[in-house]
Amino acid sequence: MRVLGIDCGSERTGFGVIESDGRAHRMIAAGVIRTDPKLAFERRLMEIAARLREIIRAYAPDCGAVEEVFHAQNAKSALKLAHVRGVALLALAEAGIDVGEYSPLEVKVSVVGYGRAEKHQVQRMVRHLLREETLQPEDAADALAAAICHANHRLRQAANHAG
Amino acid sequence: MRVLGIDCGSERTGFGVIESDGRAHRMIAAGVIRTDPKLAFERRLMEIAARLREIIRAYAPDCGAVEEVFHAQNAKSALKLAHVRGVALLALAEAGIDVGEYSPLEVKVSVVGYGRAEKHQVQRMVRHLLREETLQPEDAADALAAAICHANHRLRQAANHAG
Repeated sequence: MRVLGIDCGSERTGFGVIESDGRAHRMIAAGVIRTDPKLAFERRLMEIAARLREIIRAYAPDCGAVEEVFHAQNAKSALKLAHVRGVALLALAEAGIDVGEYSPLEVKVSVVGYGRAEKHQVQRMVRHLLREETLQPEDAADALAAAICHANHRLRQAANHAG
Repeated sequence: MRVLGIDCGSERTGFGVIESDGRAHRMIAAGVIRTDPKLAFERRLMEIAARLREIIRAYAPDCGAVEEVFHAQNAKSALKLAHVRGVALLALAEAGIDVGEYSPLEVKVSVVGYGRAEKHQVQRMVRHLLREETLQPEDAADALAAAICHANHRLRQAANHAG
């Protein structure tokens, strides 16, 4: 199963593609889409959409994973992030890709083992699980973490069905 | 000048197209895009995007007007609305259409004359300004109000330039 994880942000949107059987995960690609803060917001949304569509075409994921918006954070930045998230969900839906949505807590529990993990612990655990030598930037690591979380959830569902 | 106003919502998104010289306004089209609440959210975003692109193709607006998200309201519904708004801004930007963004207060002041106007007062004033006989549904009236606000602002800018 190939999963595209997306970590939305108006200035930096992380993405990560993994191949997984739900137990072992392998990284296919990861990176950060940066947009110019001087551009009008709608132009930045356009760039993010264009890059996500390219990534979807290039890596042909079977499914997508996107974190839910964490609305305890600053209301204004949560609203901006939700605009980007709308665009990301649209790009996935228009490519016919099913999306799993997970809270930041679920992602951390799934990847690190507990929900209060710090950013750098997520980064390291992602590197460990993917057997990668280099540490990904935070936004890319968060996107990979969402993808791993989705793969783990799917395995559990499949196992429950089988059992 | 032809303006497309959009009033975003996850269940109902209003739209209104007007032709205006900044003084007199004429309605070209208005309506409400409804999406099925039983559909997954990303499918609803897809439907909204598809309908907005159709409307843009059909009426070829010169510019767009979209209300800002009102984040004093319920945080959860504001976040949902922001997803839809992201998709609307994307559809406009991808069609090369410049967007004006106005607060609900600015729209009411521009259309009704004061910022605490009720929904039904906006509806009636929109009908009056467009010299239409029938009252539009609330969401369509709000979209038309945003379009009228944008046309009024553009006239003022042009007048300031001329003076």
